Amino acid sequence: MPDAPAISRFPVPALADLPDDIRGRIQEVQDKAGFVPNVFLVLAHRPDEFRAFVAYHDALMLKDGGLSKAEREMIVVATSGANDCLYCVIAHGAILRIYDKNPLIADQVAVNYRKADVTPRRRAMLDFAVKVALRASEIDETDYERLREHGFSDEDAWDIGAIAAFFAMSNRLANMTGMRPNDEFYLMGRVPRR
Amino acid sequence: MPDAPAISRFPVPALADLPDDIRGRIQEVQDKAGFVPNVFLVLAHRPDEFRAFVAYHDALMLKDGGLSKAEREMIVVATSGANDCLYCVIAHGAILRIYDKNPLIADQVAVNYRKADVTPRRRAMLDFAVKVALRASEIDETDYERLREHGFSDEDAWDIGAIAAFFAMSNRLANMTGMRPNDEFYLMGRVPRR
Amino acid sequence: MPDAPAISRFPVPALADLPDDIRGRIQEVQDKAGFVPNVFLVLAHRPDEFRAFVAYHDALMLKDGGLSKAEREMIVVATSGANDCLYCVIAHGAILRIYDKNPLIADQVAVNYRKADVTPRRRAMLDFAVKVALRASEIDETDYERLREHGFSDEDAWDIGAIAAFFAMSNRLANMTGMRPNDEFYLMGRVPRR
Amino acid sequence: MPDAPAISRFPVPALADLPDDIRGRIQEVQDKAGFVPNVFLVLAHRPDEFRAFVAYHDALMLKDGGLSKAEREMIVVATSGANDCLYCVIAHGAILRIYDKNPLIADQVAVNYRKADVTPRRRAMLDFAVKVALRASEIDETDYERLREHGFSDEDAWDIGAIAAFFAMSNRLANMTGMRPNDEFYLMGRVPRR
Amino acid sequence: MPDAPAISRFPVPALADLPDDIRGRIQEVQDKAGFVPNVFLVLAHRPDEFRAFVAYHDALMLKDGGLSKAEREMIVVATSGANDCLYCVIAHGAILRIYDKNPLIADQVAVNYRKADVTPRRRAMLDFAVKVALRASEIDETDYERLREHGFSDEDAWDIGAIAAFFAMSNRLANMTGMRPNDEFYLMGRVPRR
Amino acid sequence: MPDAPAISRFPVPALADLPDDIRGRIQEVQDKAGFVPNVFLVLAHRPDEFRAFVAYHDALMLKDGGLSKAEREMIVVATSGANDCLYCVIAHGAILRIYDKNPLIADQVAVNYRKADVTPRRRAMLDFAVKVALRASEIDETDYERLREHGFSDEDAWDIGAIAAFFAMSNRLANMTGMRPNDEFYLMGRVPRR
Repeated sequence: MPDAPAISRFPVPALADLPDDIRGRIQEVQDKAGFVPNVFLVLAHRPDEFRAFVAYHDALMLKDGGLSKAEREMIVVATSGANDCLYCVIAHGAILRIYDKNPLIADQVAVNYRKADVTPRRRAMLDFAVKVALRASEIDETDYERLREHGFSDEDAWDIGAIAAFFAMSNRLANMTGMRPNDEFYLMGRVPRR
Repeated sequence: MPDAPAISRFPVPALADLPDDIRGRIQEVQDKAGFVPNVFLVLAHRPDEFRAFVAYHDALMLKDGGLSKAEREMIVVATSGANDCLYCVIAHGAILRIYDKNPLIADQVAVNYRKADVTPRRRAMLDFAVKVALRASEIDETDYERLREHGFSDEDAWDIGAIAAFFAMSNRLANMTGMRPNDEFYLMGRVPRR
Repeated sequence: MPDAPAISRFPVPALADLPDDIRGRIQEVQDKAGFVPNVFLVLAHRPDEFRAFVAYHDALMLKDGGLSKAEREMIVVATSGANDCLYCVIAHGAILRIYDKNPLIADQVAVNYRKADVTPRRRAMLDFAVKVALRASEIDETDYERLREHGFSDEDAWDIGAIAAFFAMSNRLANMTGMRPNDEFYLMGRVPRR
Repeated sequence: MPDAPAISRFPVPALADLPDDIRGRIQEVQDKAGFVPNVFLVLAHRPDEFRAFVAYHDALMLKDGGLSKAEREMIVVATSGANDCLYCVIAHGAILRIYDKNPLIADQVAVNYRKADVTPRRRAMLDFAVKVALRASEIDETDYERLREHGFSDEDAWDIGAIAAFFAMSNRLANMTGMRPNDEFYLMGRVPRR
Repeated sequence: MPDAPAISRFPVPALADLPDDIRGRIQEVQDKAGFVPNVFLVLAHRPDEFRAFVAYHDALMLKDGGLSKAEREMIVVATSGANDCLYCVIAHGAILRIYDKNPLIADQVAVNYRKADVTPRRRAMLDFAVKVALRASEIDETDYERLREHGFSDEDAWDIGAIAAFFAMSNRLANMTGMRPNDEFYLMGRVPRR
Repeated sequence: MPDAPAISRFPVPALADLPDDIRGRIQEVQDKAGFVPNVFLVLAHRPDEFRAFVAYHDALMLKDGGLSKAEREMIVVATSGANDCLYCVIAHGAILRIYDKNPLIADQVAVNYRKADVTPRRRAMLDFAVKVALRASEIDETDYERLREHGFSDEDAWDIGAIAAFFAMSNRLANMTGMRPNDEFYLMGRVPRR
């Protein structure tokens, strides 16, 4: 394979051509991760959509609240697995392994979260998230009740559902654009650091 | 029914308690529409998410491009119908009737877009949008080819798919929060203005 | 659009060519409604089937019993929505709005009956009806038990299930023939009479 | 099993208590078949619905036209198999074996009509019928085209679709009432007459 | 139909060309049944796979244990019906009728096991088997609990699930090869012996 | 987590208690792989089934033919992903990475084989395999034609379908027993050997 495979069906802008704020944000990620996750380059084709996407992502994934960062990523991986989204399973699977300090958890949650090594609390969280992902029109009071039984507040329920909803969008954007995960993600968090 | 039905499962902030920018935006909509669509009040429970949601919505629905405003709303109604989302079918159905100056189109598109009075070009647009909504993991080159045959550019294809993706999120947020459409929407655009 | 769109894929008989009893029945409806609902014209292509269809419809929808007329129409709208049948959602939605004196109820029930403003009793009725519409082979004693808990007799259960079954047929006839709802239905019952 | 199993969840009227026309019709069937098919007894619980059901059935199944009687029964068996309806598969399977003088055809068509020993023309007929049974909202012009390619007129298409639609109703009535097929049906048409 | 229909899409070996052990096994079945079930001829195209298939079949179907032979065949017929597998429904339906001494049971179980004349214990057995056939990834502890409530040991549960799993394979092999059931099976066990 | 998680819902035999041939086979795998894959221990609970399973596996996966070993494993991973089977995705994903000398391929194929970096020939192979896995009753001549267009012989087609069928069984056994993949598999084949 002489050429690198395309990362998008659409044109991918050169960093130099991007507005300053977007280039700055991408630079920031690169400094931290050591590479630029393709989602930034693919979505930068549409600067306004890029800005809104990133702002929404940060509002849901970086905020304080009852869910740990690992739990948020677990929701992403479970619902992206249910939606057969390669980019999100691979990229967020990497982040989940790192946050949860668990090299096995992402594959378990992506393939069949019912068989994953998770606590009953997290199982209830994932049941709610996957129902929002696949059958949101059937969500009712009993779904909230079950979350409460596991100690989740209603604000936590919003977080779980909103993350599932945001990645319902992301999964469709990734599948529609043919977004390709960076090769780097596949191995991240699998080998314990010494 | 003495009390008005709740418009959300979650707390709804009073306008006076909202940050200035959000209250300003809501005021603007009220001045234009004559009432505040409930989506603004329901999502204002989370100011940061509100801002990102509105920015994303505007980037997709208010931009220039190959799709008319009526066509954009048609995509929203067709995919929201496929997702059984009451709020989005009712609210965007009203907007679609007004933009398309067609009192019948929204109900047709929401119930079964295959039977709607639309041109073959719009039918192809809705087929693509509904595939992104329901089976995005199967989108492939042939789907883009079919859009091109009907005169859509690839930028149009992005618009169609991104609107379907954004409302995949909105539909889930509405179903999760139990968002109730304002009564005003049901009749809007149905009676011809004289 | 200079020509009116076709109301059926099949030939539509002229009123003058119809057998007396069928023309009489159609005249009766026209006198009452002010127009002839297209279902009568489309099915009149087959006089014997027309007669049986109308007789069956009347036996289920006009009979006395534990269900109000509004409730019967509500069953029609919910199951027709589940079957994506444009004609039945639009035509019976109009009748439902009038019988229930509620301009919002039809759209709610058609898009997602789980979010409609209905009593728990009516919710149970619609759950049974939609199960007959979509998964009749799984109906069992527990479904009847639940209806009884909400005060429905077994004769009521027959009515609910038989209406859902009859419109399983009607929905398929309408979708197969490309039956077009009359424009008049869309607005009926939406504007309060003074 | 000392008691015979119930043939319906609902009360089954005694022949003596039935209106004359219904008793007459049932008597006629009994004289011809040697026993009373349970569908007549189960539906006689509702005399008006009984009359409409039988009239509709006869209008579709006994009329002249481009479909043979065996073909009509074949449509019933294929769609009833797709709907998991025990009564209709067993009762109409018996009739199909007799009309088609083929002891194997009913089981083939009920289990997987794609593997049945049928001509390409009958295969096209069954494809149309099963699409009306399961996905009627997607029926479009290409489905009619395919029937025409196999020599079916549009009137034949109506017959195929209307039979599939009528049995969509019958299957739901049978599943809802727990209608039990008579033991006699299971063996009928399996042993060649000498 | 001058030629007998093919029993496989693939070449079917002549008995004389088969390895001794396979010909011996086939001879044995023929002596017992009076004919050679086509599955033996179709799979003999691949001798090593034939041997493993037969060994696996015998390990599950001929072993001692808490399930009667009729119950094992009932699992085969219910899951093969769920998978629309003509060969297995017809061939194992015949065996089920004979083992259960019940000429009606196979058709009941194949079309809709929920309506079959079976004990609550057997109903629970079939619910578990069909869940393994159709939704194995959702099997959890509650499914095992329900079996225990009906007196099944965990070894019985393995038997039920393993038979359902083995015929998940067989059904796919039969559907893939176009395996045709022998005509003899259709009538076997339907006419009481005197 | 002080105790290692169970690898099966059922008793797992000690190696010392196993029949010689089974212990020998397991020893062989351990010598080669450096550990005992849990499938061997879980299935050894039933020695006869173990023997048949292994013989069948070897007949399909170790034979000569038109499919490479990597292609066989690719079929396993794609169909196991479609069936949400954790054990098979993880264990065979490891083997696929090694055989294909490609650290990315297994995750791609498991999550969404349509987005995997595979040749059109392999894409056609996986389309056929996944159809056998999910909709085998609809396999027909056109599916075989498409394989031939990509250079597959009919014997190759049998291999593809038979592997998909065998793992339809394996996936159900793994899901039913709660079979846990060994931790070792997750990392195998991901880090290039130097």
